[in-house]
Amino acid sequence: MENGTTTSRRTWNFKENEKLVSVSDLTVRSVLNKLYCCIDPADTRPVIPLGHGDPSAFPCFRTTPIAEDAVSDAVRSAKFNCYSSTVGILPARRAVAEYLSQDLPYKLSPDDIYLTIGCGQGIEILFNALSRPNANILLPTPGFPYYEAWGGFTQMEMRHFNLLPEKEWEVDLNAVEFLADENTVAMVIINPGNPCGNVYSEQHLKKVAEMARKLGILVISDEVYAHLTFGSKPFVPMGIFGSIAPVITLGSISKRWIVPGWRLGWLVTNDPNGLLKEHGVIDSIMGYLNISSDPATFIQGAIPQILQETKDDFFSKIVNMLREDADICYERIKDIPCITCPSKPQGSMFVMVQLHLNLLEDIEDDLDFCAKLAREESMIILPGHNVI
Amino acid sequence: MENGTTTSRRTWNFKENEKLVSVSDLTVRSVLNKLYCCIDPADTRPVIPLGHGDPSAFPCFRTTPIAEDAVSDAVRSAKFNCYSSTVGILPARRAVAEYLSQDLPYKLSPDDIYLTIGCGQGIEILFNALSRPNANILLPTPGFPYYEAWGGFTQMEMRHFNLLPEKEWEVDLNAVEFLADENTVAMVIINPGNPCGNVYSEQHLKKVAEMARKLGILVISDEVYAHLTFGSKPFVPMGIFGSIAPVITLGSISKRWIVPGWRLGWLVTNDPNGLLKEHGVIDSIMGYLNISSDPATFIQGAIPQILQETKDDFFSKIVNMLREDADICYERIKDIPCITCPSKPQGSMFVMVQLHLNLLEDIEDDLDFCAKLAREESMIILPGHNVI
Repeated sequence: MENGTTTSRRTWNFKENEKLVSVSDLTVRSVLNKLYCCIDPADTRPVIPLGHGDPSAFPCFRTTPIAEDAVSDAVRSAKFNCYSSTVGILPARRAVAEYLSQDLPYKLSPDDIYLTIGCGQGIEILFNALSRPNANILLPTPGFPYYEAWGGFTQMEMRHFNLLPEKEWEVDLNAVEFLADENTVAMVIINPGNPCGNVYSEQHLKKVAEMARKLGILVISDEVYAHLTFGSKPFVPMGIFGSIAPVITLGSISKRWIVPGWRLGWLVTNDPNGLLKEHGVIDSIMGYLNISSDPATFIQGAIPQILQETKDDFFSKIVNMLREDADICYERIKDIPCITCPSKPQGSMFVMVQLHLNLLEDIEDDLDFCAKLAREESMIILPGHNVI
Repeated sequence: MENGTTTSRRTWNFKENEKLVSVSDLTVRSVLNKLYCCIDPADTRPVIPLGHGDPSAFPCFRTTPIAEDAVSDAVRSAKFNCYSSTVGILPARRAVAEYLSQDLPYKLSPDDIYLTIGCGQGIEILFNALSRPNANILLPTPGFPYYEAWGGFTQMEMRHFNLLPEKEWEVDLNAVEFLADENTVAMVIINPGNPCGNVYSEQHLKKVAEMARKLGILVISDEVYAHLTFGSKPFVPMGIFGSIAPVITLGSISKRWIVPGWRLGWLVTNDPNGLLKEHGVIDSIMGYLNISSDPATFIQGAIPQILQETKDDFFSKIVNMLREDADICYERIKDIPCITCPSKPQGSMFVMVQLHLNLLEDIEDDLDFCAKLAREESMIILPGHNVI
């Protein structure tokens, strides 16, 4: 083979980043892409898409016109065509601080708020900010696989504690204590829970905070499903215990307003003692924000109007529909022998079930079950194990 | 000091990611933040903000109503509240393929298009996708510091070639050949140029492609300022030479439509020979997209209308204003002894000048000059050296 001239075939130096290709297989997105490939194109029934927390395709879950007006007003004002500041524009951060402070015993400042491209970028920022040689992080099982993907990519060691189905998916705090060591930097909780539909009581959250303090770690509280609760327990933000151990809350308009495609979320420091600043975590968050992308400026510009003017009847309509859907799922699942639901969902948009493989023929595991359900019934659900 | 009880003060395990804090100092954003801190609050004159490619604050640079209508229509349709697909929604990718194909000798397919959160995320994706142990990349000096920040963060070795002021900032191809070895994976060009205002001829781009082929590397062509040319040379996309060496183009609506805050760009493979797929680069790009954030879905939804319906008179009005501004800068600079402009800008939104420190008193370097200009004259410009 010739080489080195402009017309010859030659060798090329570029190739794949192997680490990236392997971790991206862990994401919901990647598993969903595979399951959608199983759908039989000859099946004329519409696909039933129950694979992620996004009901926006169903007309009954349309967002409020107040939110649509806010975005339209912002884009037509021409005030928000510019680049955003690193942390997000001040009026939007101030509005988020006021919105979240309603549920807290103290007032957040706009300086506690960092606007993100949905809750997902919040996870990306935290793994990059906290990652350092030998550091480890404690993650829940079952959990949200995006944490595992970023943990893998940033090479943060991940240690998993169980959520306890017999205790409404509470954190196994004994396991947390057993897993942690002097290199553990944080633990993650997801409340209301993805994928278990759990809602944590104030008492349980206080125990989480006390354990975090004992271990010298911070709590990352993923509250993207905040206020979407429909059981006996109300939503309680982890931030109320920020003076026991530092808490970083992740949130978004994605779920409560049913607009995950708008890509606007927040990372919030609930840390009245200033420990995150003192230990350099704030500098790292700022450092990552300096090199990463921002949410669209005019969506930031719409945030004050969206947070301040949305009416309670919109929120209660959404919660009532979620309650009804959860009830239907829970009741119907009782009639299916090979599936049991250990704990009735009380929040978020998910039902977590156990699959009894011994009652099924020709099903290898949960991923195989999901693939065959997609192929034979045009229905998309997510496996609970293979993606965790 | 007590330790380990819930009420005592104790040690905390979390701390900063040092690498992140140091690389983020390299960004335009970080330097701008520092310069804005130098502004004298007692100075009543308005700040003159010439520090980045974002004229959207000036009313004469307002975007076209067609683009505002497109976004407003998309958000009110409620069709785009959902999560996007990994690569971007098909109608938007098809529209970008058609828009870019107008200037190419072949047709791009929607599968060549990956939608990004502005051009910046395109840079982030490429550094993450191409990074591997010992790999190096060739970057221009002067250049755009965001490349250096992501190079530093992904630990890709960076080697710098000069742009030649006496040749209208053409690439020093001898230097490129001298710097490259078997671990060099790519070279970057920015055309129209940031920060030099250069526009490359078809002949020069062909030489770049032939050198890339000789070296076995791909060309990353940052064309975020595409079509913003006002000298004798028209804009020519690097993609026309994609059959000589693989070309990845980065682009965006940010600059031509004066909407950098809308955060919508594209990464495009111009690679008729399929070398990027064959060598795993496409898998890596997909892998990073699987774990990273997307542009807002409704902005993607607005893209067909924006690209297809914007009228030529909007584009020519913007280009005429840029020409006029460049002429004013170039002529006025002639009257300032301590500054010379080696090459009149022909495109983009920048003028690159040389500062003669020997003619100045009490100025240490270019950053010091910019800081004192901010303090004494409320004017923001960027240093050419310290951030590169």
